[in-house]
Amino acid sequence: MSDNTDLRIAVLGVGMMGADHVARITDRISGARVTVINDYLTEKAEQVAATVPGARVVADPLEAIAADDVDAVVLATPGPTHEKQLLACLEAGKPVMCEKPLTTDAATSLEIVKREAELGRKLIQVGFMRRFDAEYEQLKAAIVGGELGQPLVMHCAHRNPAVPPYFDSAMIVKDSIVHEVDVTRFLFAEEIISVQVIRPTANSLSGTDLQDPQIAIFTTETGRHVDVEAFVTTGLAYEVRTEVVGELGSAMIGLDVGLVRKTRPGVWGGTITPDFRVRFGAAYDAEIQRWVHAVRSGAETGNYVDGPGAWDGYAAAAVCEAGVRSLETGERVTVDMVDRASIPGA
Amino acid sequence: MSDNTDLRIAVLGVGMMGADHVARITDRISGARVTVINDYLTEKAEQVAATVPGARVVADPLEAIAADDVDAVVLATPGPTHEKQLLACLEAGKPVMCEKPLTTDAATSLEIVKREAELGRKLIQVGFMRRFDAEYEQLKAAIVGGELGQPLVMHCAHRNPAVPPYFDSAMIVKDSIVHEVDVTRFLFAEEIISVQVIRPTANSLSGTDLQDPQIAIFTTETGRHVDVEAFVTTGLAYEVRTEVVGELGSAMIGLDVGLVRKTRPGVWGGTITPDFRVRFGAAYDAEIQRWVHAVRSGAETGNYVDGPGAWDGYAAAAVCEAGVRSLETGERVTVDMVDRASIPGA
Amino acid sequence: MSDNTDLRIAVLGVGMMGADHVARITDRISGARVTVINDYLTEKAEQVAATVPGARVVADPLEAIAADDVDAVVLATPGPTHEKQLLACLEAGKPVMCEKPLTTDAATSLEIVKREAELGRKLIQVGFMRRFDAEYEQLKAAIVGGELGQPLVMHCAHRNPAVPPYFDSAMIVKDSIVHEVDVTRFLFAEEIISVQVIRPTANSLSGTDLQDPQIAIFTTETGRHVDVEAFVTTGLAYEVRTEVVGELGSAMIGLDVGLVRKTRPGVWGGTITPDFRVRFGAAYDAEIQRWVHAVRSGAETGNYVDGPGAWDGYAAAAVCEAGVRSLETGERVTVDMVDRASIPGA
Amino acid sequence: MSDNTDLRIAVLGVGMMGADHVARITDRISGARVTVINDYLTEKAEQVAATVPGARVVADPLEAIAADDVDAVVLATPGPTHEKQLLACLEAGKPVMCEKPLTTDAATSLEIVKREAELGRKLIQVGFMRRFDAEYEQLKAAIVGGELGQPLVMHCAHRNPAVPPYFDSAMIVKDSIVHEVDVTRFLFAEEIISVQVIRPTANSLSGTDLQDPQIAIFTTETGRHVDVEAFVTTGLAYEVRTEVVGELGSAMIGLDVGLVRKTRPGVWGGTITPDFRVRFGAAYDAEIQRWVHAVRSGAETGNYVDGPGAWDGYAAAAVCEAGVRSLETGERVTVDMVDRASIPGA
Repeated sequence: MSDNTDLRIAVLGVGMMGADHVARITDRISGARVTVINDYLTEKAEQVAATVPGARVVADPLEAIAADDVDAVVLATPGPTHEKQLLACLEAGKPVMCEKPLTTDAATSLEIVKREAELGRKLIQVGFMRRFDAEYEQLKAAIVGGELGQPLVMHCAHRNPAVPPYFDSAMIVKDSIVHEVDVTRFLFAEEIISVQVIRPTANSLSGTDLQDPQIAIFTTETGRHVDVEAFVTTGLAYEVRTEVVGELGSAMIGLDVGLVRKTRPGVWGGTITPDFRVRFGAAYDAEIQRWVHAVRSGAETGNYVDGPGAWDGYAAAAVCEAGVRSLETGERVTVDMVDRASIPGA
Repeated sequence: MSDNTDLRIAVLGVGMMGADHVARITDRISGARVTVINDYLTEKAEQVAATVPGARVVADPLEAIAADDVDAVVLATPGPTHEKQLLACLEAGKPVMCEKPLTTDAATSLEIVKREAELGRKLIQVGFMRRFDAEYEQLKAAIVGGELGQPLVMHCAHRNPAVPPYFDSAMIVKDSIVHEVDVTRFLFAEEIISVQVIRPTANSLSGTDLQDPQIAIFTTETGRHVDVEAFVTTGLAYEVRTEVVGELGSAMIGLDVGLVRKTRPGVWGGTITPDFRVRFGAAYDAEIQRWVHAVRSGAETGNYVDGPGAWDGYAAAAVCEAGVRSLETGERVTVDMVDRASIPGA
Repeated sequence: MSDNTDLRIAVLGVGMMGADHVARITDRISGARVTVINDYLTEKAEQVAATVPGARVVADPLEAIAADDVDAVVLATPGPTHEKQLLACLEAGKPVMCEKPLTTDAATSLEIVKREAELGRKLIQVGFMRRFDAEYEQLKAAIVGGELGQPLVMHCAHRNPAVPPYFDSAMIVKDSIVHEVDVTRFLFAEEIISVQVIRPTANSLSGTDLQDPQIAIFTTETGRHVDVEAFVTTGLAYEVRTEVVGELGSAMIGLDVGLVRKTRPGVWGGTITPDFRVRFGAAYDAEIQRWVHAVRSGAETGNYVDGPGAWDGYAAAAVCEAGVRSLETGERVTVDMVDRASIPGA
Repeated sequence: MSDNTDLRIAVLGVGMMGADHVARITDRISGARVTVINDYLTEKAEQVAATVPGARVVADPLEAIAADDVDAVVLATPGPTHEKQLLACLEAGKPVMCEKPLTTDAATSLEIVKREAELGRKLIQVGFMRRFDAEYEQLKAAIVGGELGQPLVMHCAHRNPAVPPYFDSAMIVKDSIVHEVDVTRFLFAEEIISVQVIRPTANSLSGTDLQDPQIAIFTTETGRHVDVEAFVTTGLAYEVRTEVVGELGSAMIGLDVGLVRKTRPGVWGGTITPDFRVRFGAAYDAEIQRWVHAVRSGAETGNYVDGPGAWDGYAAAAVCEAGVRSLETGERVTVDMVDRASIPGA
């Protein structure tokens, strides 16, 4: 594959997550495009494919994996199908980004690990997306950089407003707490050796018979303690909070205020951005992405459709000229600007 | 241009901002690629072009604008060249995303406005990127949605740690305060009619003879008051804070804690995310983008290079199985996991 | 006056502030008691005096000041009476704590200053209570201690939910902004040399014809800039915010989060308490004060009336004994506690 | 005891806490004074008594309790002496405020409970001061008021920078975690039925062999879950954080930002003060208390010693007069003020 050719991706499963990945690859990601879409509901696959220029539907997942116009695979199918599909990816030698879970149990997951190891080449990535979150990256950096000292304890809260009707108590472990399992392994870089799940009084307002909330307690190989409150029927919002307590200090993310450190006597502190490219980096991305989309769609740009136009540039220049004059005297200066209505089309 | 063909962009000027835009379009933005690069320093243009597959250098800016393989232009050249280059874009009928300022004075800016109006088609967007910032969008929404009532007053602070040696006192108005000029016009949707620039005691530690800080005061058409503290030699960080005070409440952004509202008696509040796609949207983008880059570069994926691999999926499954067993009893359960070293290549 | 005798105080004027001072001296302050109460409404004075053991009403304010059983005076009468009453205090040689304003205009205030200066002894304190607020004290300390460097600019916001019907636009200056006048002089330790009051669009929801909000701008002797937003009909809450911007950093109080500093690159920070006596100092005061009041009133103490009782001490001991046993094993230990109902009267 | 006579208190034990209580009663509390001081180190008692007008030393604690000039007792002696001294207080019928622990074990505590119950009159209060802390009171109110719904889970962190050399692992339970025992019982108004203490990797930097941190888990009568991180050698600061998670929302105190609620979808919020008497209540107390102390000590008041003086009142009046003139025109007005040096003694 030459460097300026897009990676051609098959997306298998276009439910909520899969459709989200299709939109992501099509609208926001550089260097890739979706060429093949598969879903066990062909109609669903057709609907999504209709939004992606150049994408076709392939009804059979294994055929989609094997297709010539597919360089790599995104797997967003239900968990029970993962094993077979992952094995097909390995056989075809195609990189695969697999939404969690890898498979539905440890035994079959281990089989996947062994098969990939025999291949001698890593082809599988699992969708633990928190590792790519800016706050978790900061927290990891605070640990790796030594700022917190040796970590001893971690407190996690993981709250959802609601869950779908089929969600059961075991899924709180396998679908919700599993993220904290990976966060623990990612941040502490060691394995978890024991788990305890405590069952407090259940939320009587959930309209379910779930054991919710649950408190999970992990012990790691070196004896670190992790506790996780999972509460999936709060009725409020999505909250993910993680605090690491180390020998030199503590740091917490998920307070809606970025990473907050306590690493010096008597002071708590957050982070302020070093420069405008960090502060407004996402704004620059959005500015250019929306402009590209507008231009490609043949829309007028400028303030009629998206973003500030020439008039805004003129108005800013007129105000700044008045400002520079005021800077000389300190007195109020009236802005000299033409009437916009006097320029038809402006 | 067919829908699945990338927009071909010429970037003129590849100093800090221009080079940033080249990287953005090449590495992070969907649907566009840089085909032509221009800079008055040809060597600089060559350096940047070497990082972009398929991009070529064109030494003359007007020739770059006119080139057949250019659908649209990003202008990041010095301000004094903008007028001529914008006119060339208008003449060629090519959309242009022009970094601020539109031109260096109000008179020439007005000429651009008029020329574009004569064309009958908006082709120019100006780089006031704050309009694309999530916090400013929230603030705009709080105003438009009526949550704050009629806005009466706005307080702004705009602080930089340092400025380059050529920065003079008038540039604090034209390069820094100009952003608050646009923010005022964007948020209040009306023009500024007078400006006053107050000169407090200057910062003696700046190592410059700048009038810094400066306090700018704007009055808008309907009599609203805006004050701006511009302080560009704080030595600390980049801080942009904006508070709108309305008849029903106030809201502030830039406190490093997202938008904070005061719109009900006795309570102040921030915003928490409604669901995981909002909370982790950027993480999902980064996850897929990095995976695409890794695959395209021929790198192994999984935990060796980038992101969690099959072993991580297995480990999570093993821990969750223990968790589900503990959920039944409330007792601590030991995790059953094979030794990773027993699987060569895992 | 011997050291263990209470200071005997006359309170003149027992409207909202004066009555508050009477309660303060009677219920919360050590070393003083109110012996004489005066108000131009004698009935009001009688009502308040009825709540203070040992206090009597004196109908004439000058007689109250002169009384033998009065060592010092608190003046909470309307401003126009202050001049005469202050002169009486000076003549009697009695210390006086005078609610703002000193007098109603600068000329008569100057007369008071001169008369006290002639006496050669300071007897007057003015009720600018912000100087005694913990946050302002921290802000003053941050300035005096050099942490912020030389202060250059100060931003203030002063918001009230509502004002009484007789409040007029000039009172926003004289009754509200006057606090920021004193804060400026207190924090910067220099005089204000000019004032500008800007009139933004007025709040149409105030139900008044006030010019509200107002923006006051002060310049100090050394050229520092202070701006004050006074907005007294917000309908929301009482907010007092003050930010000092210095050559080395900035600090803000009134964000409902204590003092927040920005004095190091890339970090913002608040203050955490060094020890439990600071954190819980006010709780200890309240604990003992309420216990004293309960005992003096003949009430039973302990958990029936106020504060934890013997049962709470026993329950804590029983839980801790179980905890110490669990500490040895890490296992859950059942708490061994008698049934409270088995002890009548417990 | 008549209403305007001070309560006469014996303080037993004048180590850190006891001496603090002596100062509190003498300098800040209304309606009480210390008449008798006792310590097993007579010299220590003498030192403290020397700072309190009218206090005498009594060498024997039981004699101090029985003394005629003692109406009530504050017990700040070592725990092992409490039982005997509490019984003496009960026998004498004197109210006693007893620092925790009530006694050193549950069995003797139960004896005290029974003896007091037999008396038929509550005389004992235990020093769980958090019940008097404004933030815990707010948290209790949020529970009692139903804002959080039925509480299900509570997370606590209790961190000290350091502990004295004699502190052992069991004391972390009995001296630190005991506060969370009482907080649980206070907030949830039910008993704790089991305790588990988990021992994570210990802090290797503590310079001790303490099991520190410890994680305590409480289960209450109705099945609520409480976890407590106690970490007494952080080297940083004193931190006490408590979060209650209920069926309708959660609230946290101890984030250095007051109580923060999450009780509505998508919003988190803190509390802002309704009026100036709440916001500046403590400042008013301090203002009057310091003025009383200054006057009693014969010091000059006003700006020479403590608080603003007549000159400050004059300066404020002069600035406000200029402000009122500017209010009419919007223009800058120079302040007219005499030179302070022209008034000797001002």
